[in-house]
Amino acid sequence: MEEPNVGELKPPERVLLGPGPSNVHPRVLGAMNTSIVGHLDPYFVDIMDEVQDLLRYVFRTDNEWTLPVSGTGSASMEAGISNLVEPGDTVLVPSNGYFGARMESMAQRAGGETVRVDAPWGEPLDAVDVQEAFNEHQPDIFGFVQAETSTGTLQPDVSELVDIAHSHDALTIVDTVTSLGGVELHVDDWGIDVSYSAAQKCISCPPGASPLTLNDDAMDKILSRETEPRCWYLDLAELEDYWGDNRSYHHTAPVTNIFGLREALRIVAEEGIEERWNRHLRVSGALKSGIEAMGLEMNSRDDAWLPTLNAVRVPDGVDDDTILRRLVEEYNIEISAGLGDLEGEILRIGCMGHSARAQNVLYLVDALGEILDDEGVDVSPGDAVAATSDAL
Amino acid sequence: MEEPNVGELKPPERVLLGPGPSNVHPRVLGAMNTSIVGHLDPYFVDIMDEVQDLLRYVFRTDNEWTLPVSGTGSASMEAGISNLVEPGDTVLVPSNGYFGARMESMAQRAGGETVRVDAPWGEPLDAVDVQEAFNEHQPDIFGFVQAETSTGTLQPDVSELVDIAHSHDALTIVDTVTSLGGVELHVDDWGIDVSYSAAQKCISCPPGASPLTLNDDAMDKILSRETEPRCWYLDLAELEDYWGDNRSYHHTAPVTNIFGLREALRIVAEEGIEERWNRHLRVSGALKSGIEAMGLEMNSRDDAWLPTLNAVRVPDGVDDDTILRRLVEEYNIEISAGLGDLEGEILRIGCMGHSARAQNVLYLVDALGEILDDEGVDVSPGDAVAATSDAL
Repeated sequence: MEEPNVGELKPPERVLLGPGPSNVHPRVLGAMNTSIVGHLDPYFVDIMDEVQDLLRYVFRTDNEWTLPVSGTGSASMEAGISNLVEPGDTVLVPSNGYFGARMESMAQRAGGETVRVDAPWGEPLDAVDVQEAFNEHQPDIFGFVQAETSTGTLQPDVSELVDIAHSHDALTIVDTVTSLGGVELHVDDWGIDVSYSAAQKCISCPPGASPLTLNDDAMDKILSRETEPRCWYLDLAELEDYWGDNRSYHHTAPVTNIFGLREALRIVAEEGIEERWNRHLRVSGALKSGIEAMGLEMNSRDDAWLPTLNAVRVPDGVDDDTILRRLVEEYNIEISAGLGDLEGEILRIGCMGHSARAQNVLYLVDALGEILDDEGVDVSPGDAVAATSDAL
Repeated sequence: MEEPNVGELKPPERVLLGPGPSNVHPRVLGAMNTSIVGHLDPYFVDIMDEVQDLLRYVFRTDNEWTLPVSGTGSASMEAGISNLVEPGDTVLVPSNGYFGARMESMAQRAGGETVRVDAPWGEPLDAVDVQEAFNEHQPDIFGFVQAETSTGTLQPDVSELVDIAHSHDALTIVDTVTSLGGVELHVDDWGIDVSYSAAQKCISCPPGASPLTLNDDAMDKILSRETEPRCWYLDLAELEDYWGDNRSYHHTAPVTNIFGLREALRIVAEEGIEERWNRHLRVSGALKSGIEAMGLEMNSRDDAWLPTLNAVRVPDGVDDDTILRRLVEEYNIEISAGLGDLEGEILRIGCMGHSARAQNVLYLVDALGEILDDEGVDVSPGDAVAATSDAL
């Protein structure tokens, strides 16, 4: 068996305007390019406390159980779901995007029975439908998505949906993967019981340690489970024994990722969370202005526009693959295609964290305009860039 | 809710001679300090192939299903166990260390019934006992540990134990967390069905993407499961759909960790796997010579000496906490204490990967000798360093 002969790592310098990862601030990479320490080192133990405080800041919560899960976003998602859901629980999940289906699969594997509240892909849930689903199924847990990465749709009335669940004595799990640090979110004020997110979206940290927070009601349900959670690696009572005061060894934390996450969250705190939400609105709003000035159409209605992930209808006369390929090959820009019911129908243009900057949206609007013009679509690239510029 | 005020990251420069993480080569940190790309980027897809080839090289296998799991070592451990074990399977696990107990917990959560083969902590399993356990319980799966991190014990006869399992039509899961890349291991030649490891031990990469390999027999069992694996995040059939030819999105890979793992494995390949095993024997053997010249005693018998993690009896007249604390505070050296049945009885001194170098073991032997001398233990630090030097 010969040694494989692989060359030096030379990744291309992409402008990351897809559904994540977003571009990483050099300070975050610098924090990861430091001496590693042990996961039980006294220095690291202090870092753990700081990361938890920073996570509470971005989630807008005082929740004790607030920690980064040692995996990418789907790991914090499954940690939330697989600990909260006990065999026999009924779990209400949405059908209006890819991540509702993932919730459903995770809840079923945890032993839950799942029921659905429907909405078309690309539209938010309607509170009336949620109310009806509660009346019909009396679920124990309601999971839904604040910012659907697969469709670029914002759920604009999170606190209202949480209130419906609480009035039926159900707990809520809210997916904030594509909203945390980019879209207004108040875990405590809105009463959210469990929320999970990812590092590589609006926090702009390489993926590998993923934010999760749970309130006391969720914690109490987990601590009074009759059966163990089905995944040892994601067992929150054991994780909390490491992240909490006991500092008991559970598994080796991804130390370097935690260093990076700390720096990325520090940058969020320096900017200020509300200013950061406003920046996403402003920069992505300028992108939207450019897109619309080009004659293209947004897929979401205005109250469900998701500034961190813009769903744009693919115009007639060109296919999405061509646009994506030319953006990467000719401009080094990554955006993404639609999924599921929206496959071939939309472009997904992210505007998250360190990627959400004026130079990136100007460059994207210019590049997209040039490509569409070249492909024979009737657009005016110059007007589009001007509209973007005016809105910045 | 105020912004937490946390300062600049300034981790201390530890000499990492504990049970992991080991020190990371600057080239590995450099590879992580590069532009991030998307997890479906064509550039990253090529990187994935290279990482898989490099993993096959260190595991000494041609297994198609060879991939890094998106989490730390316990994630690849649970990926192996929770996919292979189906509800109702009987799983034989060892009782001679911490990680056998972890296997047991994971197998039970996957729905398996567990039975044990016993040996004292600090001793390897006896093949006769394994044979008897097979005769008594007829397990479907036998999990055991090549290199017990909790006790510093090598299982010297891995292929013999695998043969016993195969003669009873059972599959094997071998923990190589503290052996892969540091201790002789031949997954294919020894007939191992499933083996998992970690990045931060003898591979010397920050933890976060963890090696796993499965042969065709294990793959066939998984692909013919009647129930879904209980953890979505670690579902190997779905992971293989992303890492294999389909490249179907499952979850976001920890791109930066994969970059680091690739560089760490490149360094292994440049050194050559056999030369790397020999280096661990030579450098750790010198450490052992120094320890013994000091008058201290190794905990493991000679044929179960684990060069990557040396278990040293705590001498009379001093407690382990004092030694560990003084090593960190006065010398910036991390070693570790005993666990479970060996708590307070042993020191665990790692010698792994980039940490397994002459300067580190000379420094540790010198520091340990000075501390013990200062604490009133009758040792001769100068002789110990001389013995270490002679053996290098």
